Amino acid sequence: MSSPISAYERNLDRNAANYEPLSPLSLLRRAARVYPDYPAIVHGPVRRTWAETYARCRRLGSALRSRGIGRNDTISILASNIPALYEAHFGIPMAGGVLNTINTRLDAAAVAFIIDHAESKMLLVSRDFLPLAQQALDIAANRPPLIVIEEEGASRSCWYEQFIAGGDPEFAWKGPEDEWQAISLSYTSGTTGNPKGVVTNHRGAYLNALGNTLAWSMPMHPVYLWTLPMFHCNGWCFPWTLAALAGTSVCMRKVSAKGIFDAIADDKVNHFCAAPTVLAFILSARPEEKRRLAHPVRVMTAGASPPAAVLEAMTKDGFDLTHVYGLTEVYGPVVVCAWKDRWNALPLDDQARLKARQGVPYQVLEDLTVMDPKTMTPVPADGETMGEVMMRGNVVMAGYFKNAAATGEAFAGGWFHTGDLGVLHPDGYVQLKDRSKDIIISGGENISSIEVEEVLYRHPAVLEAAVVARPDPVWGETPCAFITLRPGASATAQEIIAFCRANLAHFKCPKAVVFGELPKTSTGKIQKFELRKRTTDIVQPAA
Amino acid sequence: MSSPISAYERNLDRNAANYEPLSPLSLLRRAARVYPDYPAIVHGPVRRTWAETYARCRRLGSALRSRGIGRNDTISILASNIPALYEAHFGIPMAGGVLNTINTRLDAAAVAFIIDHAESKMLLVSRDFLPLAQQALDIAANRPPLIVIEEEGASRSCWYEQFIAGGDPEFAWKGPEDEWQAISLSYTSGTTGNPKGVVTNHRGAYLNALGNTLAWSMPMHPVYLWTLPMFHCNGWCFPWTLAALAGTSVCMRKVSAKGIFDAIADDKVNHFCAAPTVLAFILSARPEEKRRLAHPVRVMTAGASPPAAVLEAMTKDGFDLTHVYGLTEVYGPVVVCAWKDRWNALPLDDQARLKARQGVPYQVLEDLTVMDPKTMTPVPADGETMGEVMMRGNVVMAGYFKNAAATGEAFAGGWFHTGDLGVLHPDGYVQLKDRSKDIIISGGENISSIEVEEVLYRHPAVLEAAVVARPDPVWGETPCAFITLRPGASATAQEIIAFCRANLAHFKCPKAVVFGELPKTSTGKIQKFELRKRTTDIVQPAA
Repeated sequence: MSSPISAYERNLDRNAANYEPLSPLSLLRRAARVYPDYPAIVHGPVRRTWAETYARCRRLGSALRSRGIGRNDTISILASNIPALYEAHFGIPMAGGVLNTINTRLDAAAVAFIIDHAESKMLLVSRDFLPLAQQALDIAANRPPLIVIEEEGASRSCWYEQFIAGGDPEFAWKGPEDEWQAISLSYTSGTTGNPKGVVTNHRGAYLNALGNTLAWSMPMHPVYLWTLPMFHCNGWCFPWTLAALAGTSVCMRKVSAKGIFDAIADDKVNHFCAAPTVLAFILSARPEEKRRLAHPVRVMTAGASPPAAVLEAMTKDGFDLTHVYGLTEVYGPVVVCAWKDRWNALPLDDQARLKARQGVPYQVLEDLTVMDPKTMTPVPADGETMGEVMMRGNVVMAGYFKNAAATGEAFAGGWFHTGDLGVLHPDGYVQLKDRSKDIIISGGENISSIEVEEVLYRHPAVLEAAVVARPDPVWGETPCAFITLRPGASATAQEIIAFCRANLAHFKCPKAVVFGELPKTSTGKIQKFELRKRTTDIVQPAA
Repeated sequence: MSSPISAYERNLDRNAANYEPLSPLSLLRRAARVYPDYPAIVHGPVRRTWAETYARCRRLGSALRSRGIGRNDTISILASNIPALYEAHFGIPMAGGVLNTINTRLDAAAVAFIIDHAESKMLLVSRDFLPLAQQALDIAANRPPLIVIEEEGASRSCWYEQFIAGGDPEFAWKGPEDEWQAISLSYTSGTTGNPKGVVTNHRGAYLNALGNTLAWSMPMHPVYLWTLPMFHCNGWCFPWTLAALAGTSVCMRKVSAKGIFDAIADDKVNHFCAAPTVLAFILSARPEEKRRLAHPVRVMTAGASPPAAVLEAMTKDGFDLTHVYGLTEVYGPVVVCAWKDRWNALPLDDQARLKARQGVPYQVLEDLTVMDPKTMTPVPADGETMGEVMMRGNVVMAGYFKNAAATGEAFAGGWFHTGDLGVLHPDGYVQLKDRSKDIIISGGENISSIEVEEVLYRHPAVLEAAVVARPDPVWGETPCAFITLRPGASATAQEIIAFCRANLAHFKCPKAVVFGELPKTSTGKIQKFELRKRTTDIVQPAA
């Protein structure tokens, strides 16, 4: 009698020898085992090897356990890119806890909201953000114990150092029992309303840590500069990627063009991640701040579609740019503008246009497409038809913390809805066109604010530009441009509009131009909702 | 009232958007999507892109489904490294089936055993192995339908081609429902008794496909030469690795030194895997067969500890060797002799000695150690104390097919027992000393046959060497050397023994030396059990 169960399903189960929940913690253990004396951390005069870093992470994990921290306990941390924040990416999960990095640019009320909503069991805070933390704790209902991270090498009492000094450097930590266990809770910087808490797990963190190495073809032992805040969705998983590759983290408390050029020259940095605003920093560095690149420097950029002019200028300066796209909800970047060798033969301007596209899924992202969100059918791959960018796979979040409604909406129809509008090009590359709310509808025509911004960035006097809809009695909406000029440069609204008309369909050109500084969120994104409010005050006549 | 369930365990479940069973099939889909016109297969005059290869795999999957093949059905294939075998690595799992590659060097009885034990539902066989297949089917109780893979481009009827021509090039395949689902069944070439069927699954295959890219720091688009048979534990997962990197598979039906040099020069091959015997081929190529390397060629070698002399000679010829170690039970290589830059400053001979060590775990292997198998405690990391090499992690097999007893033994104590003896060096690197049965015990002293072989390989006249135990009335056992000399070289037993005495403790030196060809298994391993039998016939007096 034949068995109803296949022989492949008998006595071939998971066991301790052949199954281990995926977790980035195992990457740290390997780095320390194989490369104990290789540099892991550079922070001013502080230099630590992988053996030392692993011992410190174990001390942290052990110290947390001795304070009663365990599985699913949230530990919040408020710090810039210092070694303790790197260590938190390992030490907190080693204790079974969930790492909650808080954006240091938030105000006290927002920090208090997070500490309450996350139900934080402990708050680690670096000395420079202690006033912010104390203000937040004055407001918050939850009052977790505070551990202060002292400036390393300072003579005053080192509370974080005391805390971990009590921990066991040979702590016999255990990985998660289940790879679905939460590893991180990151609050998205919503422009309105309360932020949502994105829960990610050990499985996804492990896979996207490896995903970065594949999509960026990273070699072993990269020297990586922390321009990207680690509090931005866990530094796009790079703390874990660097453990996989036994690379060096060069910390940088405050980002400046000079600091970047110095780190490249002095610490031999060869990789960093940066938002386009950081690229703009680098490009507008004063001559005395710049230093010639003595070796190739690879830059991963995301956060907003980098203007072609910026991409072009960076390439001319010798930086090798890879454009990626992602969101906190997908562990950071999961889409890459994979470069084709044959494109190197094109004029630099065409290359920049191709590179400004968001691209194709990471190897570890299962699928990526652009759909009509009502019918959930993909748009034609014509580079024209707009739809919502959708993703699915193991590097999509578990969901929003204590927010089943938002989670349900985000995953409607079995895909993660990014909220970003885009097109699918005939070669399968996705390009963002706008956030749904950023599209400008003028006389029934859709205008992509990004397309108009692209043109503005090509104007030699423009440092930064943002285009939003301005209410118009005739057209419904018209594009309104907000511009920051380069230091020393000058331009009139008329000149800017004329430049646009020479490079764009006329209906897409701004009807009003406002000069000045652009309002930004704490994460450096331009606050278009703020600009939209300002459009009603504009008295400038339409050109 | 507080809930007993953590908020991290409510409404944050797996769903279609955030969970996909890991499977190497998704790597193929991505390669075809992102790099449709990049070369995937080179086989003589045949050139196929990733789009074409993906379409052919989908046709194969679809054709199998239309023949009723589904989940957990075994499909056997008997072929050398031809495109159909590459396609089988994707098409068979797409249909839900389990790929069973059969070693073409087996005899009909062994092939029949496999077809019966695997309960094969279909047998794919290339034209050149049709007589073997037919002989096997004459013996086997199971009589699966036969699909003959015709030589590509041949004018005769192409049965495999007809078969897949009936399949749908846009077959809407589905990945496995469960990543633990079997993807492959590979019979180990045991030297005695019936072979055991190693069952591996989609999860492990995916992870080790990525593991190869990390451990070997592989760039995108490698050009990879198939010297390693794909029927050796799925070509160490490289069919799937090449999909992850959109690399090119250069097929090679018969391995020869000339063929390797030609492929490097003509097809720009820059990566290949090879057993030490293939390296010996390359080193002893005739001058007119060799061609100068115009670009770096990286070679991954495993299968036996490569003699230091071979490593040294290959390096001198311009090949960049990476030494790995693994077994069919762990998806191929999972241990790598990770290279430290500082070792480059050492004399080449010392470098070779360091590189001859098996090394450290792959990033995707959870743990590796050397233990006393009785007490299951690790040996001291002194480079001296022998124990059994043990591994655990996601790249360890599910178990042996229909052999719960062998599976239980292999996984005793929660570790996979490799059956290989080794030591742990102070720097954490593992080095094999012998298979348990290959150790020589002479006068109560353990002698590592590998250590003696290492010395023999350094003798300029020696092409291949194997050392086994010879029964001895006084010492219990003594080492006996079997040697193949290089073409044109000559040496006497006395000279060889004197050479050993100059380089080894005297008790470790061979007491007898036999010259001639060495017997090998179908997988190219030297058959030590055969040599052991021959030692009883030796009349040569002890030196």
